[in-house]
Amino acid sequence: MPELNPPETAWNRAFEAVADSLLPDLQRWHRTPQQIVSFTQATESSFFGVKLSPASHAISDLPSLPWGKGADFILDFGVHMVGRLSFQLSGVGRHMDAPCRLRLTFGESPLDVTMGMDGVDTWISTAWLPDEILNIDELPQTVSLPRRHAFRFLRVQVIDTSPEYKVAFSDVFCECISAIGQDHTLDAVDFGNPLLQDIDHVGISTLRDCMQTVFEDGPRRDRRLWSGDLRLQALANYSTLREFNLVKRCIFQFAAVVRTDGSLPACVFEKPQFAPSKDYIIDYDELFSAIVDDYVAASGDLETGHTLWPTVLHCVKRGLSSLNPTTHVFELERTQAFKFIDWAKDLDKTAASHGLLLYCLKKVNHLATRLGQDAPYTDMVDKMTAAASTFLQNGVFISGPNSQISYASAAWLVLAEAFPPTIAREALLATIRHPAAVKPLTPYLWHYVCDALMTVGCYEECLDLIKSYWGGMVQAGADTFWECYDADDAKASPYGDARNNSFCHAWSCTPSYFLRGKLFDGLKGRVTGKITMGELDHRWVKRSALS
Amino acid sequence: MPELNPPETAWNRAFEAVADSLLPDLQRWHRTPQQIVSFTQATESSFFGVKLSPASHAISDLPSLPWGKGADFILDFGVHMVGRLSFQLSGVGRHMDAPCRLRLTFGESPLDVTMGMDGVDTWISTAWLPDEILNIDELPQTVSLPRRHAFRFLRVQVIDTSPEYKVAFSDVFCECISAIGQDHTLDAVDFGNPLLQDIDHVGISTLRDCMQTVFEDGPRRDRRLWSGDLRLQALANYSTLREFNLVKRCIFQFAAVVRTDGSLPACVFEKPQFAPSKDYIIDYDELFSAIVDDYVAASGDLETGHTLWPTVLHCVKRGLSSLNPTTHVFELERTQAFKFIDWAKDLDKTAASHGLLLYCLKKVNHLATRLGQDAPYTDMVDKMTAAASTFLQNGVFISGPNSQISYASAAWLVLAEAFPPTIAREALLATIRHPAAVKPLTPYLWHYVCDALMTVGCYEECLDLIKSYWGGMVQAGADTFWECYDADDAKASPYGDARNNSFCHAWSCTPSYFLRGKLFDGLKGRVTGKITMGELDHRWVKRSALS
Repeated sequence: MPELNPPETAWNRAFEAVADSLLPDLQRWHRTPQQIVSFTQATESSFFGVKLSPASHAISDLPSLPWGKGADFILDFGVHMVGRLSFQLSGVGRHMDAPCRLRLTFGESPLDVTMGMDGVDTWISTAWLPDEILNIDELPQTVSLPRRHAFRFLRVQVIDTSPEYKVAFSDVFCECISAIGQDHTLDAVDFGNPLLQDIDHVGISTLRDCMQTVFEDGPRRDRRLWSGDLRLQALANYSTLREFNLVKRCIFQFAAVVRTDGSLPACVFEKPQFAPSKDYIIDYDELFSAIVDDYVAASGDLETGHTLWPTVLHCVKRGLSSLNPTTHVFELERTQAFKFIDWAKDLDKTAASHGLLLYCLKKVNHLATRLGQDAPYTDMVDKMTAAASTFLQNGVFISGPNSQISYASAAWLVLAEAFPPTIAREALLATIRHPAAVKPLTPYLWHYVCDALMTVGCYEECLDLIKSYWGGMVQAGADTFWECYDADDAKASPYGDARNNSFCHAWSCTPSYFLRGKLFDGLKGRVTGKITMGELDHRWVKRSALS
Repeated sequence: MPELNPPETAWNRAFEAVADSLLPDLQRWHRTPQQIVSFTQATESSFFGVKLSPASHAISDLPSLPWGKGADFILDFGVHMVGRLSFQLSGVGRHMDAPCRLRLTFGESPLDVTMGMDGVDTWISTAWLPDEILNIDELPQTVSLPRRHAFRFLRVQVIDTSPEYKVAFSDVFCECISAIGQDHTLDAVDFGNPLLQDIDHVGISTLRDCMQTVFEDGPRRDRRLWSGDLRLQALANYSTLREFNLVKRCIFQFAAVVRTDGSLPACVFEKPQFAPSKDYIIDYDELFSAIVDDYVAASGDLETGHTLWPTVLHCVKRGLSSLNPTTHVFELERTQAFKFIDWAKDLDKTAASHGLLLYCLKKVNHLATRLGQDAPYTDMVDKMTAAASTFLQNGVFISGPNSQISYASAAWLVLAEAFPPTIAREALLATIRHPAAVKPLTPYLWHYVCDALMTVGCYEECLDLIKSYWGGMVQAGADTFWECYDADDAKASPYGDARNNSFCHAWSCTPSYFLRGKLFDGLKGRVTGKITMGELDHRWVKRSALS
């Protein structure tokens, strides 16, 4: 949400230079389609209402299959990818006496390749829709699309050739792109549970596909760096791929575009040149403290902690100015700044904002201690902790004039450790049990709910949530985790139409952070050695080819 | 029309090498849009039912105009062009936070840029339709379309940007392409009549835009060399641009792909490599004799005449085998080969085919004499001339079992000079007066009607026909002459939908051949000197900017 009169950017070109020096060498590899498939109406229960079946032709027959006007088929690459499509297109028949017009639709989900892309009713740009119209004058030709796409399925529609010729496709491949190459290794973990194994895998794939020259929020949409998403990606990364330099690059990018009042934008652009977005989110600003503290803890890079200390110290200032100076309670109306917390409808964000700020002040203090400095906010932490009692009523957390009960309030007040653990746990569980509690809409907030559960020792509840929420996506066929997931509605979308949803979205990648982290000891899992991303992908492709 | 079992190609690689050596250096120049225009419902009589008006913005304002979702405007370049579009696209607003999707429609006629390109019902390939969808990820960017287009109008539709930004267009230009550059000179002629002046100009523009690496039939569709079209282009060329080498190249291309029975294909392809089309048209085959005879006469290049003599001798063989061996009358059913003559519906082609073959035999004889050889077909010419009397009944030419009267029959029997001039003239004029006579559908046949009128000394009738037919297109707003023209129906099409018509079509370029040739002395015109194509274009653009 852009601000009306944002402060000027106080460019820190030294930080920008650090970020530039950490530009990753993008890794590239080829992936070819595994099957020609079709989606038919599902007879059994199926999240998307469709069943994936191999088409009547084997993929090895593709080069010999001629397709004419009206032809429509789907190639399944077996795994979600980010990259550029290439194929050899040949004429079959007498002569190419007219151009060939193709429509290619890059499918992250079955919806993309079964619903078509006409009549999409969405309030964000329809230019995000993943279809391309190609007009080709000469055959044979190697067709290499200049744009990067994110997809597993490729729907090919031959709009027209001519009565004289058809076209054949061969050498179809995607040049996959990520900061993480196929030979990148990580711990191979046996969770002793197929669903958890899959959840871990899908989370890692999600993370990998979002790791480009920055941590993108989603490689299909918006393809750029948001600080709130970065925090979750970085946490998942520390537990899996452990690519610290990309995190450091992104942290310095935000620090480079600090504004004159010390606040940080919610998002930065890399193109056409590095620049801050006008988007500002007060909770994302505050969370910069957590991002740096997490990074220093995970990497041991104290130098970066020292360098960024002034930036961290200031990123909570806007939050602090939103506190009532007498009661030290966060008050929404004290700032015009957008508070995100979650996309849940009609969510009252007062209690969550209070909890989130308190959580971040503790992160600042924690970092200060780690850096051998005095914690600057001990007094304020005490005041806000005391003030938090206003949000606890009858054993449950409430927020706003209507005493709204929500997962958001509960998660952030628990994470802020504003109450003794027993009280916090009971209030959190009471919220979850409460029939009127406002639930999270995004995996982003579901992550913080999981984290809150872990904070108060609710391991089983956290594991059950991961199994039902992220496991639900896996059982619905996810190769990567989604921007939003409503178990009751495959076509749910915050944007009016699910065809504009992102089905590989960074802020849903965190199950591995829990499974390989705080949950690990309680699970019957074990590290079995090392595995490369290429091997992980290969297993997934092989399995999907059998499904 | 492809043949079922065409003879093999008897490649003459020496002829192909001659053709290759004559590949023209394509000339290139830039042309910029002159106006932002809109088409409104015409209040006065208008062929297309629309009126071209300048839009509320001057073209000089274009770089500063921001266009967002749903924007739709038309740029008028003032003259028909063949070339590649380029423009600079910039973002206007906060930040480009989503791709930009544009639809560009290249308009030869107002129909193209006012009707839209959806729901076109045509039996030829819809891949010919002149629209492109572009998805652009980064701004600012120079957008250079790789495909060649033929157009005067460019309709720009902004399908979407995002609420955060709009786009601006600057440095819009077309890199125009033709074998004929802007500094190519020709005779400047003052016809003392504005309509004739325009007709001459539009014909020359048509010819120039079709002159690429070969004489294309139409630079929008089919973009390739057909022998029937070549004949008319070559004739117009001799009277205007006089680029003999391009004619020679095309003649050798056909001769290079002679078939084992001596026949020639109707069309050749240059891409992906030089090759004959499978299309065969018996009348086009025969007309190769006229093409070579015309060329030798116009250029004085006797050497080419000698080299191609065997090819010319054979190109009439299939026609000859279609004659009844006793009566020497052409019989349609003796060959499966497609006879074109014209696209007029239900046309009986017997008489026209007889006349056309006789005309071509005389061309062979004429070439033989010019080359100092014995005329091979004097005896057959006599026999066919005598046989032609079967087509004359009650002072009018008839054809087929239903004694059909048509312009086609009359034109070709007159051109064949099968009857004494007075009889031929009266029969031709009687045909034209006859209410049931089947009229030509294409400018191609209208050309031969004009030529027939000149053959029998009907100068005024020929001039009137040029003024009404080709002048009708000029008055309807043509910058180049069209593939087909029905004065009563702007949406008439041989292909089901006028949006798949070609509005710059070689076979309609011949008025200059008459105006600067056989009609010239009778007109009050005079050659005033030399003029370049660039000057001619400039005059036209300047005038269209005022209209």
